[in-house]
Amino acid sequence: MDELRPVTFTRNWLDHAEGSVLVEFGRTRVLVAASVTEGVPRWRKGSGLGWVTSEYDMLPRATNTRNDRDARKGRVGGRTHEISRLIGRSLRGIIDYSALGENTIVIDCDVLQADGGTRTASITGAYLALSDAVAWLRGRGLLAGEPLLGSVAAISVGIVGGVPMLDLCYEEDSTAEVDMNIVCSGTGDFIEVQGTAEGKPFDRDLLNQLLDLGQAGCAELTGLQAAALHGEVQKQ
Amino acid sequence: MDELRPVTFTRNWLDHAEGSVLVEFGRTRVLVAASVTEGVPRWRKGSGLGWVTSEYDMLPRATNTRNDRDARKGRVGGRTHEISRLIGRSLRGIIDYSALGENTIVIDCDVLQADGGTRTASITGAYLALSDAVAWLRGRGLLAGEPLLGSVAAISVGIVGGVPMLDLCYEEDSTAEVDMNIVCSGTGDFIEVQGTAEGKPFDRDLLNQLLDLGQAGCAELTGLQAAALHGEVQKQ
Amino acid sequence: MDELRPVTFTRNWLDHAEGSVLVEFGRTRVLVAASVTEGVPRWRKGSGLGWVTSEYDMLPRATNTRNDRDARKGRVGGRTHEISRLIGRSLRGIIDYSALGENTIVIDCDVLQADGGTRTASITGAYLALSDAVAWLRGRGLLAGEPLLGSVAAISVGIVGGVPMLDLCYEEDSTAEVDMNIVCSGTGDFIEVQGTAEGKPFDRDLLNQLLDLGQAGCAELTGLQAAALHGEVQKQ
Amino acid sequence: MDELRPVTFTRNWLDHAEGSVLVEFGRTRVLVAASVTEGVPRWRKGSGLGWVTSEYDMLPRATNTRNDRDARKGRVGGRTHEISRLIGRSLRGIIDYSALGENTIVIDCDVLQADGGTRTASITGAYLALSDAVAWLRGRGLLAGEPLLGSVAAISVGIVGGVPMLDLCYEEDSTAEVDMNIVCSGTGDFIEVQGTAEGKPFDRDLLNQLLDLGQAGCAELTGLQAAALHGEVQKQ
Amino acid sequence: MDELRPVTFTRNWLDHAEGSVLVEFGRTRVLVAASVTEGVPRWRKGSGLGWVTSEYDMLPRATNTRNDRDARKGRVGGRTHEISRLIGRSLRGIIDYSALGENTIVIDCDVLQADGGTRTASITGAYLALSDAVAWLRGRGLLAGEPLLGSVAAISVGIVGGVPMLDLCYEEDSTAEVDMNIVCSGTGDFIEVQGTAEGKPFDRDLLNQLLDLGQAGCAELTGLQAAALHGEVQKQ
Amino acid sequence: MDELRPVTFTRNWLDHAEGSVLVEFGRTRVLVAASVTEGVPRWRKGSGLGWVTSEYDMLPRATNTRNDRDARKGRVGGRTHEISRLIGRSLRGIIDYSALGENTIVIDCDVLQADGGTRTASITGAYLALSDAVAWLRGRGLLAGEPLLGSVAAISVGIVGGVPMLDLCYEEDSTAEVDMNIVCSGTGDFIEVQGTAEGKPFDRDLLNQLLDLGQAGCAELTGLQAAALHGEVQKQ
Repeated sequence: MDELRPVTFTRNWLDHAEGSVLVEFGRTRVLVAASVTEGVPRWRKGSGLGWVTSEYDMLPRATNTRNDRDARKGRVGGRTHEISRLIGRSLRGIIDYSALGENTIVIDCDVLQADGGTRTASITGAYLALSDAVAWLRGRGLLAGEPLLGSVAAISVGIVGGVPMLDLCYEEDSTAEVDMNIVCSGTGDFIEVQGTAEGKPFDRDLLNQLLDLGQAGCAELTGLQAAALHGEVQKQ
Repeated sequence: MDELRPVTFTRNWLDHAEGSVLVEFGRTRVLVAASVTEGVPRWRKGSGLGWVTSEYDMLPRATNTRNDRDARKGRVGGRTHEISRLIGRSLRGIIDYSALGENTIVIDCDVLQADGGTRTASITGAYLALSDAVAWLRGRGLLAGEPLLGSVAAISVGIVGGVPMLDLCYEEDSTAEVDMNIVCSGTGDFIEVQGTAEGKPFDRDLLNQLLDLGQAGCAELTGLQAAALHGEVQKQ
Repeated sequence: MDELRPVTFTRNWLDHAEGSVLVEFGRTRVLVAASVTEGVPRWRKGSGLGWVTSEYDMLPRATNTRNDRDARKGRVGGRTHEISRLIGRSLRGIIDYSALGENTIVIDCDVLQADGGTRTASITGAYLALSDAVAWLRGRGLLAGEPLLGSVAAISVGIVGGVPMLDLCYEEDSTAEVDMNIVCSGTGDFIEVQGTAEGKPFDRDLLNQLLDLGQAGCAELTGLQAAALHGEVQKQ
Repeated sequence: MDELRPVTFTRNWLDHAEGSVLVEFGRTRVLVAASVTEGVPRWRKGSGLGWVTSEYDMLPRATNTRNDRDARKGRVGGRTHEISRLIGRSLRGIIDYSALGENTIVIDCDVLQADGGTRTASITGAYLALSDAVAWLRGRGLLAGEPLLGSVAAISVGIVGGVPMLDLCYEEDSTAEVDMNIVCSGTGDFIEVQGTAEGKPFDRDLLNQLLDLGQAGCAELTGLQAAALHGEVQKQ
Repeated sequence: MDELRPVTFTRNWLDHAEGSVLVEFGRTRVLVAASVTEGVPRWRKGSGLGWVTSEYDMLPRATNTRNDRDARKGRVGGRTHEISRLIGRSLRGIIDYSALGENTIVIDCDVLQADGGTRTASITGAYLALSDAVAWLRGRGLLAGEPLLGSVAAISVGIVGGVPMLDLCYEEDSTAEVDMNIVCSGTGDFIEVQGTAEGKPFDRDLLNQLLDLGQAGCAELTGLQAAALHGEVQKQ
Repeated sequence: MDELRPVTFTRNWLDHAEGSVLVEFGRTRVLVAASVTEGVPRWRKGSGLGWVTSEYDMLPRATNTRNDRDARKGRVGGRTHEISRLIGRSLRGIIDYSALGENTIVIDCDVLQADGGTRTASITGAYLALSDAVAWLRGRGLLAGEPLLGSVAAISVGIVGGVPMLDLCYEEDSTAEVDMNIVCSGTGDFIEVQGTAEGKPFDRDLLNQLLDLGQAGCAELTGLQAAALHGEVQKQ
């Protein structure tokens, strides 16, 4: 109940990207790529500040039944938009734009297979890809300082059958009475807290239990991230 | 700091809609309309269940500087999508779809003027418009039971200059270190909790202060909603 | 038959816009906002000329039954396009672009409730919002002269049951045999004349009666506009 | 000044369409195709009524300089929408939907070369293509009666250099002070009148001169249409 | 079986375009326009190189039954995209961008009537329109050299009822077992070869027969193109 | 020059899809998923025939520099459309729709990393995913016969520096004078042949060399496909 599913991070899964990682939380698999470009969007030019943005999407057959592609429908779906924005906010909480200098990093999180927790796997992996992209910039002397103020990890928690649970798979998630995503910094503080009653409203006590569970899960992920960053030579 | 801005609800602001209200939280003004249609979307036919959905949008000059219309750009923006979904989730928490029968209610929240808190004003007003639309259905004998399991209200809270504050206006919101939206049922339980660190991550203690403030604010709004529902004859 | 419905103009209905008015023609309510920006679109830069443009739209539940939003459909509807262009043409007839200098004014006409005559209410209100926006520019010394060459007002006329009528509400309009919109300058000349046979074609004599009625209606609106401009302190 | 440019109608320009004509007003060339399908749109089924609709578009190099295609921009432009709607209204004025039975006719007007008056050439040609499509239906015994209540023709008039002129070419049109389109039935009555002051507002006297000119021009076109319908065997 | 349908080229069919031709292959009719603009797209500025691009489209009633317009659907169809790209590739094979200088030529191929072979008629006509547009540039001294390295022509071939055939009309094409398009330079070499088994896979021997037939057809078209270029005074 | 890059097929890479394979041609990696649904699109209902369709896309950072997502631009790009259609045509060449019964199979080919030959890797992998999806249907007794008439494989060939080469990587492809894709059935016959001169036109002799090379490459891939199908237990 309070255990993470098996988590693996395969850094540098891509040959071209400045940072990349294949994140697996159980059967959920997300490919995260960090792309660096020198320069920033027009409206930010001359500010001395960098820019980090993020896009989330899912392959059509990541799920049990196939979904149509947004591109074919000619528009980005609401859920896709919502999660892209969440990932962006989560990363902005740990970035010093002055230290990044006028560089842009785009984080693409593409879900190859979905089994619950795709948004939290995306955020947790995005930190690793971002970290490698920053190292790539550092190696080229393109930074004005240290742009990473800390690390970030995220996990889903929920109430299933009245019991608080950590890291829900799809089957658990679809029957959860409360569904919550916790994004924490490496220091254990909150960057984002977002919980929804799927059935009846929940009280303060249940909320507290979920927060406890989520903070503990994030702490564990922070440890795994650190191990992943030390255990492998970073992309040259 | 812990006070709501002046709140007014003008029910039946529209002549055609089955439920409508002009909600004002300080200078924020949102026109909420509830539209009833008999029948449900195709995928729900024959289920005996009703459907409630919600759309949020903002007039181009609701804000300090003019924004282009989504329709002209040919796509719905991410923020618009995100808030529409939040409103929908908040209402679904208090609805019994069986009791609603195979009827559809669409809630349109259009921001006429924005000064912070447009999403929480929308949710709070949406409850009133929904309530009037349900009364309209009841008056026509179209319900299978009582579809409203309770009421819902929402308020924004945040940390500004290190101090927790209730019901932030735009100026306060744009300098807030933490920005949070609390959606509560009339019984004081949580339907949605969503908080973001705009600057540095926040700790559990600050989170608790914000939750206290938000629950109190929602309770006050619940009282104002009840008064509005009793103080005016509902739309026939 | 030859009477306007009750007409009210509430200037400065919005706090942010440089000019704004809530126009009511009977139960038709249009919120008009004029937004000023210094500078002109790229293709007009360096010409010394200003630019005025206009957009019209309708809230989904302005009408008896709800309409889907253009933004959700990903395209602007034909009727919306047609009316936006009409409003733009009507205003351009009274503007001296040299005197406006390189400033842009965007007029947004959003129909909050529709009961016939939304396009003519929009034009009539647009003149007031434009006038206030010009005053705002004048107060800041940003004008090269007097950009308003005159005033403009508009009214609908039609043949209902064989009888010429002024200012049709929706019910009258939907049964009209001829439907016409007259846009006049304050001097009583024509800026736009647009009439359509909804049923059988109409002859020159009926056309003349409609033109008489429309010119008289516009003259009355011109008086009401002048009163509105004098009766209230303009936006500072 | 009061003369039409050379007008030619080449009926049956296309091999597949049930009705088609290449219309030329001077150097303006419009290809009009009428497509018949049995049945009507879903919302009209079972009504016993037919349906006629119309679309207007322009090839990218119809004009002096090339315009981008709407399809590439992903949206229909405002001018295209406006003219499509005008053509539709003009035709609906002469159609008896009961007599048409549950058949649909789509009129496509595609401007191959533009030199002023493309909308009036489209309407004038649309009558011929529609007439041939109706004959095609009649030949197959698919009509419930005579769906054409009369004929329709259209011409542009304007004030150029203070002088009223008939059938303006592009160069004349672009300097016109007043620009007007007159749509008349074969009996000389009005189906649509639409005039705009491009410069200063115009008075009733000028309007009357333009109406005289337009009615005379339409009468002449009515004669040319009749000749075209008799001079050539209709499409079998 | 190895004969072209009647082919006609009517150069300068349009008055405005720098190059234009109405191409007819049997009942297939394509209007090709070449539009010249000085300058190149932003990403090519300062390179000293010109740019040639191409767009293909079809009028809604070019075919037996009417097709909806891409612009109304808000997107370009796959077939339209594919053919536009094919035309572009075919022309790029004979152009020297340095000699063209920083000029852009856009080739628009619009199918007025379709009876098979619209893409090959488009390519064959595009060479003539391009050639006239180049002559127009040459006449104004805007070229840095001779941009046309040769000519290009295209023809369709196929296997119908087991027999190789040249220049298939729609009825033949729709029953063909193999469908192939051959694009050749004036020297008889290949610029593009594209063949598809519509039914069962085809062997090398059949492929060779189709290639023979296609090369012969292209050679004949090359002769007709040369005659067209000499037989008419080019556009001044 | 005449050697394939290392080719690997990882079948059942996904847990949900009825057929799936991760295809690698050198550094090119494509994830192919086959999704089965009972029933066919509306226009095919009651025909007794099945349906197979295909979509191709590329992750934004599959390439050296990041590309924007089609979904964000609101439209499918021309290249994406072209390749999706090619894959569809290639598969249709080996399918017996009657034997498939009224079932639909959608093949999604998503390029995770691109290094040349993504369309041929997609087709080659699509055969394996399709084959597994057919086995899945067979296992459930949902087939009316054997829908696969044979196998299909595809490879790119080209002329680089005057020398014919097999299976070009991106660097080779971008400097190729001729670029060709060969799609063959398992019996060595052609399903699609598509070659383009990137520089100067190519003669029949070079074309023959490329066809030889391509047929040999496809034969080798056919062998590898067979091994992959036998070497692993198919998805249950």
